[in-house]
Amino acid sequence: MTTADEVIPADYRDLLERPLYGHLATARRDGGVQVEPMWFEFDGEFILFTHTSKRQKYRNLMANPAAALSVNDPDQPYRFLEVRGVLDHVDPDPEGAFYRQLARRYGREDQAPPDAADRVILYIRPTATAQQ
Amino acid sequence: MTTADEVIPADYRDLLERPLYGHLATARRDGGVQVEPMWFEFDGEFILFTHTSKRQKYRNLMANPAAALSVNDPDQPYRFLEVRGVLDHVDPDPEGAFYRQLARRYGREDQAPPDAADRVILYIRPTATAQQ
Repeated sequence: MTTADEVIPADYRDLLERPLYGHLATARRDGGVQVEPMWFEFDGEFILFTHTSKRQKYRNLMANPAAALSVNDPDQPYRFLEVRGVLDHVDPDPEGAFYRQLARRYGREDQAPPDAADRVILYIRPTATAQQ
Repeated sequence: MTTADEVIPADYRDLLERPLYGHLATARRDGGVQVEPMWFEFDGEFILFTHTSKRQKYRNLMANPAAALSVNDPDQPYRFLEVRGVLDHVDPDPEGAFYRQLARRYGREDQAPPDAADRVILYIRPTATAQQ
């Protein structure tokens, strides 16, 4: 299996390591697409997102595991990385621990989310990139 | 027909009027999705993008006209607008005039693109939004 190390260009990896917002696209079951800004973290193998099992994006990914993430460099607006991938697995996060980890990464208040009971961690496996 | 005025919430319209980057998602013919940062302009009815007829996103939209745009507010990172819509029509832009108009909007050098002959204007009709 191709590893994330082989997929993510080394000179664009900083865009996954810095606490930048990523815009995550998924396929809707009505044939459309959707995209929203999201916190994320790259663990070297997967791109992780905090989400809940009650939302549209979760239902989208259960029906079609395709995802794509766009991150641009606020310091050089022409510079961006798109990572395409697939949902590999989902872990429960019932205490909101991963949510809190991301909140700290993004400089936000470290407290459990009100919807902790429904919180999950989405693990997206990168399969391809485009960059400029 | 629902008008863009009815679709775009008035208190989020600034995110379409300011020269912010939008992340445009489209559906790939292989069942996946893709998303990249793009210049855009909202004319009150359509969201316009400069693109070329030789690229993947153009082929995607010819096969499936669904699109979604995510714009977040750099001054308030929690604030964002997602606009979902469909490709309504495409106009040729063989002199790159619309490309130059967007370049001026984004504070870039006002010169024709090297690929002017292939340049087109994508007109996306907004059909729904999500915002926070």
